[in-house]
Amino acid sequence: MKQKHTKDKHFEPKWRDTPPKKGSWRSIFKWGDPKGFKHPNPKLYALLKETFDLSDADFKTPRLVGDEPVQTKERTPFDETTIALFKEIVGDENISTSDYDRIRFSYGRTMEEIFELRQGTPENVTGLVVHPRTQEEVQKVVTFCHEKKIPLHVYGGGSSVTLGLTPKKDGVTLVMCTHMTRVIEFNETNQTITVESGIFGPALEELLNNAPDRFNAKHAYTCGHFPQSFEYSSVGGWIVTKGSGQQSSYYGDAVDLVMGQTCVTPAGVITTLDYPSTATGPMLNDILKGSEGTFGVLTSVTLRIFRKTPQTTRRFSYIFPTWKDAVNATREISQTECGMPSVFRISDPEETLIGLKQHGIDGTFVDTLITKKGYLPMQRCLLIGQSDGEKGFTKNVAKNVRRVAKANGAMSLTGYPVKMWEKSRFSDPYLREDLNDYGIIIDTLETGVKWDNLHAVHMGVRAYIKERPQTICMTHSSHIYPQGTNLYFIFIAKFATHEEYLNFHRGLIDSIEKNGGTLSHHHGVGRMMAPLMERHLGKEQMEALRALKQHFDPHTIMNPGGTLGLDRE
Amino acid sequence: MKQKHTKDKHFEPKWRDTPPKKGSWRSIFKWGDPKGFKHPNPKLYALLKETFDLSDADFKTPRLVGDEPVQTKERTPFDETTIALFKEIVGDENISTSDYDRIRFSYGRTMEEIFELRQGTPENVTGLVVHPRTQEEVQKVVTFCHEKKIPLHVYGGGSSVTLGLTPKKDGVTLVMCTHMTRVIEFNETNQTITVESGIFGPALEELLNNAPDRFNAKHAYTCGHFPQSFEYSSVGGWIVTKGSGQQSSYYGDAVDLVMGQTCVTPAGVITTLDYPSTATGPMLNDILKGSEGTFGVLTSVTLRIFRKTPQTTRRFSYIFPTWKDAVNATREISQTECGMPSVFRISDPEETLIGLKQHGIDGTFVDTLITKKGYLPMQRCLLIGQSDGEKGFTKNVAKNVRRVAKANGAMSLTGYPVKMWEKSRFSDPYLREDLNDYGIIIDTLETGVKWDNLHAVHMGVRAYIKERPQTICMTHSSHIYPQGTNLYFIFIAKFATHEEYLNFHRGLIDSIEKNGGTLSHHHGVGRMMAPLMERHLGKEQMEALRALKQHFDPHTIMNPGGTLGLDRE
Repeated sequence: MKQKHTKDKHFEPKWRDTPPKKGSWRSIFKWGDPKGFKHPNPKLYALLKETFDLSDADFKTPRLVGDEPVQTKERTPFDETTIALFKEIVGDENISTSDYDRIRFSYGRTMEEIFELRQGTPENVTGLVVHPRTQEEVQKVVTFCHEKKIPLHVYGGGSSVTLGLTPKKDGVTLVMCTHMTRVIEFNETNQTITVESGIFGPALEELLNNAPDRFNAKHAYTCGHFPQSFEYSSVGGWIVTKGSGQQSSYYGDAVDLVMGQTCVTPAGVITTLDYPSTATGPMLNDILKGSEGTFGVLTSVTLRIFRKTPQTTRRFSYIFPTWKDAVNATREISQTECGMPSVFRISDPEETLIGLKQHGIDGTFVDTLITKKGYLPMQRCLLIGQSDGEKGFTKNVAKNVRRVAKANGAMSLTGYPVKMWEKSRFSDPYLREDLNDYGIIIDTLETGVKWDNLHAVHMGVRAYIKERPQTICMTHSSHIYPQGTNLYFIFIAKFATHEEYLNFHRGLIDSIEKNGGTLSHHHGVGRMMAPLMERHLGKEQMEALRALKQHFDPHTIMNPGGTLGLDRE
Repeated sequence: MKQKHTKDKHFEPKWRDTPPKKGSWRSIFKWGDPKGFKHPNPKLYALLKETFDLSDADFKTPRLVGDEPVQTKERTPFDETTIALFKEIVGDENISTSDYDRIRFSYGRTMEEIFELRQGTPENVTGLVVHPRTQEEVQKVVTFCHEKKIPLHVYGGGSSVTLGLTPKKDGVTLVMCTHMTRVIEFNETNQTITVESGIFGPALEELLNNAPDRFNAKHAYTCGHFPQSFEYSSVGGWIVTKGSGQQSSYYGDAVDLVMGQTCVTPAGVITTLDYPSTATGPMLNDILKGSEGTFGVLTSVTLRIFRKTPQTTRRFSYIFPTWKDAVNATREISQTECGMPSVFRISDPEETLIGLKQHGIDGTFVDTLITKKGYLPMQRCLLIGQSDGEKGFTKNVAKNVRRVAKANGAMSLTGYPVKMWEKSRFSDPYLREDLNDYGIIIDTLETGVKWDNLHAVHMGVRAYIKERPQTICMTHSSHIYPQGTNLYFIFIAKFATHEEYLNFHRGLIDSIEKNGGTLSHHHGVGRMMAPLMERHLGKEQMEALRALKQHFDPHTIMNPGGTLGLDRE
């Protein structure tokens, strides 16, 4: 079959490897570093052709590449007087009404959004872009918008994949990552750092890794939070959407890292106390987590930090006969009280298959060996892991992982696959542009499960995806708790029309919820999952959340338009 | 000095060692098992006489022992028709209007409450006692009380020390621990147990320890939560007051154990989803924690559980030259990422002094040895600890504790003091009756601190207490986090009048808050701390909590009378 489609063995598509033109659509929808790329390797390219019944010819002309300059017919709805008032608050240079800025800060990374940008038809463009410099300026903006009933959106890093940023046309978008990126306090005694919410992962991590130089600290530290979007997402975004990092099984989810926070709401500024534990009633520090900009603007946060000891890190990987074996081992490790690995990820058979291709293992001696040993393609499953912490701790974790893996029929593949994974841990999003350029969709949805419904959700959702012909579906669990885990579904498919994609996607969300998963494990809700929130949580819970919304934001100005289902129109 | 007061070397007070008379005041205020006692040992007795300038003669006649039968002039305010309606819901036998029952279920263990009961002058007596059998019955009671605007209080185990139970005279008290003590689901796959909220610690722990027999489980389990009140407090009480157990440094605080819960509120029944993690907005499961009965009635809860492996437990203790050394070592252990001990407690110099007396170490060879080595009385501090979990994990924790302790000048005292402490871990409350019988008050207040304000809070609060002549003040930290800990103050004193005690106590709460501690680390707020809540949290946070209160309980029937400061009159 494969041969049919690869007439010219040496043909490789001209994957785009030049930065987008300044001011172009592509410069907005392209992921991350303008000079950053990750192209499908030959194995993956072959798989794409095979799966979608394509030939090299289909990869000769990229389409909808978005090289045209950005423009929109939408003008700012704000008059000069109003704009002058905003300028008074943040300074002339921190206000923009340009088409480019208004479009740029109105879009996240949801597939629907990429579609709109590639087609040059932005549907939702904010009225005004504001770059506040201080918490006081945020307060003034919130107060002003509250009084004038102007919709107010918050842009952290722009990596939302749940339509979390979609603005109202008559609204204002606050961009936190321009100025509000400062360290407020580094506190080694308490092992915390207080930062403004717009700081990105690498800037925070650089400060912590170099704490001895930066802060005259005794130790180097890490923030412990490494989502795939790490390089282009903000600390504030991590928390308001309840993100999880790739090492969350040890360090905790984003919300677990928050000791205290300051949130500017129309009902006033809330600064929570940052004690490690207190029995003084329900915690505002908890209530604000996950509020996705609907209650107020998170301006600063105190995070717990961790000692960075790369010299004690242990890496390991195992190949299991089946998904069931991999799941059983993972559950056993998480419940055995030996300490948790930080990176801790198992791939289902299809993801393992494609992963081995991507990491250059497919077709090598190792592939032959493990196949001969009975770890068969489309049955075998890969576990990759890493243990962080004190020397004896990481050694003990690795030892227990080994013990449990072996007891579940696994064979060690050494730390090599972890090193391979590390190289691509933040770069996979770059792959999307290449595929999209040739009309192929790669998209993800994810959910939280308990151990006892993991298989039902995995099988049910996978069945929904695979029911569609010519659709690749890879799944992994990568955030492990003693009580359950997440399931992360990646699908690659071609759709005839945008509507077909949207229908498929809506059905997929529905399938996740119906099969018993949560609406989201760590991407958040945004406007995408919002329509199912009431079915998922029940009316009583939604009414309580709406009561909070009503309290914090009585004029419904904070991130309106349906986020979280709190002001659904 | 000491000799002056102990003319008769062999005199020992006739500490009460008979169960209280049935129907007496004492049967209500006496702690725990009617046949349970813990008398001061001769060393502590000597210390009491010395401190309070008392002689044996002062310990000859106990006072206000509460042997009289309970009675109150307060009659139930409910007419026959109303009582009949309650009887219809829960059955005749589950309703009581007797003086005894109404007083018994109106009182917790706050010193003020004990005073009232000893004097036979109960100020606040509930109108009706109701023992619901099912969640449905709770719903009917809540609905009925909501409609009729009848105050509704919830009694779990009655161990509140914050005036958390004090009822309205025209109110109803729901007693959860009579019938609502069942297991709803044991789930070994998810490592959770779902129980009704009225179950007490020992019943839950017995089920889990014997899970192989009880539930045909593969492993034995533990709930991991062991507050001093373990034997006489309910699971629901642990959660709504945000309790912490003596092994919380490893297992987490009560709220950390809650995967999901069902809470019956006037605004409807809330059953939260019990996924280990989800990014679907602010969590009702968090919002309800710590609500102390002001939002609704917690009827059932799903708890994470832990494997019980007593064979791998390691016990250790160390004596440090000073409090500062003990604190430094504790902080270093908690931040070193070697895993956390479960029992993890350091006593300040005065508590160490009295602890060594209580545990029979004072005056022995060990005492002489450590003193000679330079660990001096009223400077030296005791650390006791225990590590739980998998074999390699506990070994590594113990090893690191040893390393850090030695680096901070400590000397090992073996696991013996931990074994001694274990014997009295739940029995210390019995001591109170003996002391109270001779007019001596023993009481506690506790707070949460960060590492960087621990010493300021400790010194400031201790100064307040010690400013008062003839007052013993013992302090320990026993719930350790990488970011901070708690401070638990125990004071022993004699007061001329009840008013003098109350003034001292009010000043003590004020001193804790002013010195920078939280109003409570794990006792909760109740009505006792409530007046300081707004000063502590700020108006903005209190208004948000009041908005929730208004939503869940628009008629202010749930635990009214000032709890948490939400409906302060």
